[in-house]
Amino acid sequence: MKNVDRRSAAALGLLAALTLAALRPAAAQTSDEETVRAAIGAYHAAFSSRDIKAMEVLWAHTAAVAAIHPFSQTSLVGWQAVRRSYEETFARFADVSISTTEPHITVHQGIAWVVATETLRGHRPGGEAMANSSMSTNILEKQGGRWLMVLHHASGTPRP
Amino acid sequence: MKNVDRRSAAALGLLAALTLAALRPAAAQTSDEETVRAAIGAYHAAFSSRDIKAMEVLWAHTAAVAAIHPFSQTSLVGWQAVRRSYEETFARFADVSISTTEPHITVHQGIAWVVATETLRGHRPGGEAMANSSMSTNILEKQGGRWLMVLHHASGTPRP
Repeated sequence: MKNVDRRSAAALGLLAALTLAALRPAAAQTSDEETVRAAIGAYHAAFSSRDIKAMEVLWAHTAAVAAIHPFSQTSLVGWQAVRRSYEETFARFADVSISTTEPHITVHQGIAWVVATETLRGHRPGGEAMANSSMSTNILEKQGGRWLMVLHHASGTPRP
Repeated sequence: MKNVDRRSAAALGLLAALTLAALRPAAAQTSDEETVRAAIGAYHAAFSSRDIKAMEVLWAHTAAVAAIHPFSQTSLVGWQAVRRSYEETFARFADVSISTTEPHITVHQGIAWVVATETLRGHRPGGEAMANSSMSTNILEKQGGRWLMVLHHASGTPRP
């Protein structure tokens, strides 16, 4: 290796090290954001497959968790009430899929919240096609390295 | 003071100290809960008086704050959009007052979220009386010892 190449290699190495050092805090934040994004993706997958067992794994099972669905008459507090609300939700569909806008994710220490618009398409148990949009707020809490759902609030877009 | 009184006094003092020590974490949590409850009270007061200046003081002014109102067609992200949405909301009323159910408050480190049902009563600018209920999720962030609003999601109760 010629001297000039060695110097270039050393300079490139230093540049790479400095870049990595500069990116480290951002990378930690990005990593949390990516994990939260993946948790929301898993939530949509569990919802689309109407799989209560998969949904159970994604939530914290505490008395403090809460859900408000577009059809809710009241907010549901505590894991048992939240779990039941998903069973009721899943019973409203014969099949359903969710697409979502780019989520707006905020991570602050061990808590993350995610705002997005979700579009549901599918069929009612009677075969009737359905499609509707709702705006959602999800709150997740990092527990033992995993991001668990602790709140879901979704509301239908009102007719203009 | 007799010896037995001194011993009783010392025992009482020790009991008081132990009790205070045992209560300290709960007291800190309660204090945070009380401050969050007061912040939500101030939010309702600012809303009821349709006072955008008072509302400004209660919110973090960042690009990450978000609001979804019962009439929103989309989620509003960033302080300018959120502020504008309150000006639009306030213009929907000639007068309005808010009563709320006992809020369900969760505090986790520097983040708190609050779920409640709010009932609005008042008059439209045309004089028409109005009353409706909505379920709300509010997220607050502790900044410099103050709890500031960072997200408000309210949605109307659907007709059964």
